[in-house]
Amino acid sequence: MPFDHREEHIDDRMLILQANIDDMNPEYCSYVTDLLLEQGANDVYWIPIIMKKGRPGVMLNVLTDDEGVKRMEEVIFRETTTLGLRYLRASCHRLGRELHRVDTPWGPIQVKAGFHQGELVQFAPEFKECEQAAKTYGVPLKQVYDEVRRRFMERSRA
Amino acid sequence: MPFDHREEHIDDRMLILQANIDDMNPEYCSYVTDLLLEQGANDVYWIPIIMKKGRPGVMLNVLTDDEGVKRMEEVIFRETTTLGLRYLRASCHRLGRELHRVDTPWGPIQVKAGFHQGELVQFAPEFKECEQAAKTYGVPLKQVYDEVRRRFMERSRA
Amino acid sequence: MPFDHREEHIDDRMLILQANIDDMNPEYCSYVTDLLLEQGANDVYWIPIIMKKGRPGVMLNVLTDDEGVKRMEEVIFRETTTLGLRYLRASCHRLGRELHRVDTPWGPIQVKAGFHQGELVQFAPEFKECEQAAKTYGVPLKQVYDEVRRRFMERSRA
Amino acid sequence: MPFDHREEHIDDRMLILQANIDDMNPEYCSYVTDLLLEQGANDVYWIPIIMKKGRPGVMLNVLTDDEGVKRMEEVIFRETTTLGLRYLRASCHRLGRELHRVDTPWGPIQVKAGFHQGELVQFAPEFKECEQAAKTYGVPLKQVYDEVRRRFMERSRA
Amino acid sequence: MPFDHREEHIDDRMLILQANIDDMNPEYCSYVTDLLLEQGANDVYWIPIIMKKGRPGVMLNVLTDDEGVKRMEEVIFRETTTLGLRYLRASCHRLGRELHRVDTPWGPIQVKAGFHQGELVQFAPEFKECEQAAKTYGVPLKQVYDEVRRRFMERSRA
Amino acid sequence: MPFDHREEHIDDRMLILQANIDDMNPEYCSYVTDLLLEQGANDVYWIPIIMKKGRPGVMLNVLTDDEGVKRMEEVIFRETTTLGLRYLRASCHRLGRELHRVDTPWGPIQVKAGFHQGELVQFAPEFKECEQAAKTYGVPLKQVYDEVRRRFMERSRA
Repeated sequence: MPFDHREEHIDDRMLILQANIDDMNPEYCSYVTDLLLEQGANDVYWIPIIMKKGRPGVMLNVLTDDEGVKRMEEVIFRETTTLGLRYLRASCHRLGRELHRVDTPWGPIQVKAGFHQGELVQFAPEFKECEQAAKTYGVPLKQVYDEVRRRFMERSRA
Repeated sequence: MPFDHREEHIDDRMLILQANIDDMNPEYCSYVTDLLLEQGANDVYWIPIIMKKGRPGVMLNVLTDDEGVKRMEEVIFRETTTLGLRYLRASCHRLGRELHRVDTPWGPIQVKAGFHQGELVQFAPEFKECEQAAKTYGVPLKQVYDEVRRRFMERSRA
Repeated sequence: MPFDHREEHIDDRMLILQANIDDMNPEYCSYVTDLLLEQGANDVYWIPIIMKKGRPGVMLNVLTDDEGVKRMEEVIFRETTTLGLRYLRASCHRLGRELHRVDTPWGPIQVKAGFHQGELVQFAPEFKECEQAAKTYGVPLKQVYDEVRRRFMERSRA
Repeated sequence: MPFDHREEHIDDRMLILQANIDDMNPEYCSYVTDLLLEQGANDVYWIPIIMKKGRPGVMLNVLTDDEGVKRMEEVIFRETTTLGLRYLRASCHRLGRELHRVDTPWGPIQVKAGFHQGELVQFAPEFKECEQAAKTYGVPLKQVYDEVRRRFMERSRA
Repeated sequence: MPFDHREEHIDDRMLILQANIDDMNPEYCSYVTDLLLEQGANDVYWIPIIMKKGRPGVMLNVLTDDEGVKRMEEVIFRETTTLGLRYLRASCHRLGRELHRVDTPWGPIQVKAGFHQGELVQFAPEFKECEQAAKTYGVPLKQVYDEVRRRFMERSRA
Repeated sequence: MPFDHREEHIDDRMLILQANIDDMNPEYCSYVTDLLLEQGANDVYWIPIIMKKGRPGVMLNVLTDDEGVKRMEEVIFRETTTLGLRYLRASCHRLGRELHRVDTPWGPIQVKAGFHQGELVQFAPEFKECEQAAKTYGVPLKQVYDEVRRRFMERSRA
């Protein structure tokens, strides 16, 4: 029985912010990612690129809705070294999602299930919970992860 | 004498579908690529990215026209682990193209020629045919490839 | 005292030209970058990608305004091996910029400062001038770079 | 019941051959990989690197035993554009391996199991067989793969 | 005044363990890194590679001394999907190191200084402490980082 | 007629120096590369890697003989931010090399030819000379490069 649910939908008001950076200490990257997610970014990712004079740079990418742009810009200009950024328009198609709870020898673990036109097409154990269980019980993470998947599969077949 | 021909043109109805994936067995990538091309994708490529918590992920990119979106989505949601994807609008400028046949010591091999405003700007031997000839005749692939290019150049100069 | 100044602004008429290339001698890349910048490209960068049949290709990206598209295309089709390219619409948000001059033991060196809503958020020594000073005076580049930053910071605090 | 078996062992006579390449058509890569594997390479992989003048090159890596070096060199010098290569000494620790057969709704599929000090630590469905089954039966590849894993896990628990 | 000190030295008993992985959920990477560091690895890093059939894989690299090899192997075989790994011999040249304490408006922050043949060649603020100060005081991380560097430089010049 | 010649040989006294760097301004990379080559490095290349906490770093690689190690270390410690480096032993197999001169419509251009066991296996136009000719005569670089190759091939066939 899912305890959380969202319908499949398409969101047309999304933007991708991009900034090419070749003069920043790469240590900053994960800090910047976390701040952007805290400020409501839908996604943050970095693409390795080769810039002028063959410099190994990174391109910061932030997915946000229109309302979030200002907040994202604040973080990007404050915390990175970029002198500008680009916006690209994008639409996002998001699958229907349900959260399920699966019982395991290491306690209950959530599984996120994805639905396309009403049909189950994805399911993935919540990674953080698997990590926590693996650490607490001293079992390999992959064993926890695989067992959660196995149990979810069995239930879905029933 | 070219035996196939297409005019240079710009196509404004193209879309790039993108999905960031950090929880999929990378072995699936080439299988997914092949399925998408079979379903009519104009191009498929993967970009290595760094995702949340520093995870080495990949971004699937599929170039398609409006009519192909549904079919591409079917494949992406069925065969990858993503819970969503993005669309970006794009226009494609495609060079005029001709296929030529070049005779070589290892049989005829096709060359794809590209034209910009009526002028020859590109030409490339069909890679698969060069591979096949190299295997069949036991010669280095680069020798076949270079020889095809050399012969096409000579003919173009005549 | 800045001797050069530009206001923060957003430019909505920008385009990103993209071409996926898997059959070009990678030596050409920096030559192509330089030609595009000479022709007025706002930025040029290359993204490593994985193409059909798992080929390690590169995606050329050129940021340009509408007026520059024709010139960029000339260079791309003449100098690379691509048979086509894509356009994506983008807006560019550029910080206010000032050039400052900082005196150092190795002569004056410029610093580019970036302003967001009137506030100083970025500053970076001109890299080429730091390189030149490091070579001329036989000091480590990072020492020059750090010293220019330190002096700019002190001045800004005063 | 495994039908194939190899003991865990360490092999001290291995070499890694490396060649940095920045002037080769990247289309050649997979062809070269296949030839090297046919000639008995233990493994072949390519590392994206940045070479002189910021060129995006690739480093070919070939794992081989002493006996194979000559054959590998033949292929590398014939088929790539490199003017030299490096050897690094390496030892290989290989897990004990067993091949198992798992029955699925899409026919039997092999699973390769890995043993460290007598304990099962890895298992992976044979990818090619999963691909074949997915194509033949029109089911998602990930469903085949997951089901094979699920069945192997159940059997191992029994 | 440094409160911690280590002499410059070369350590000849080091090993690099390498495992090429193309069938593992990339989410596992950071978890594996953390476990290896907890078990005493001198360094852990991942290299993006292209494997057989053009699969985008990763190569796990673990730097360890002879004594640590067994513990590293336990983690690698338990927690990743690899069926084997390689050892390469390596020597490590480590600079002399001192930890210094620098007072800032946001409290004291440590700086790690590196010495080559008795001369100061490196210094870097402790990143975690800068992050903590930036979060606590709501200032940009780069401002904290730069200020610590500026103060350390001033002191070194005195 | 070649005007320069070197025999095929294997050099067993080579070392690869490696340093993982995650806190350096990437702008420095090409400057460091140039200094190392000036100091006699046999080769310098950078590998994109993922370091602790998912930071996108780079691994500097310098190929040198025993005599060059001290000079390389001076540059690396002075000019990068690393606190240490690794040495790996390597042998280098270098093809026999000849420099040839090819006449073209844009003047003479050198071709470097590589020989394995007395047989011609490689040839490559000198890139810098092709660039220079392309700029001087306003022709596409690829046309110059291809034409030099074509002429060298014709001559070799004669």
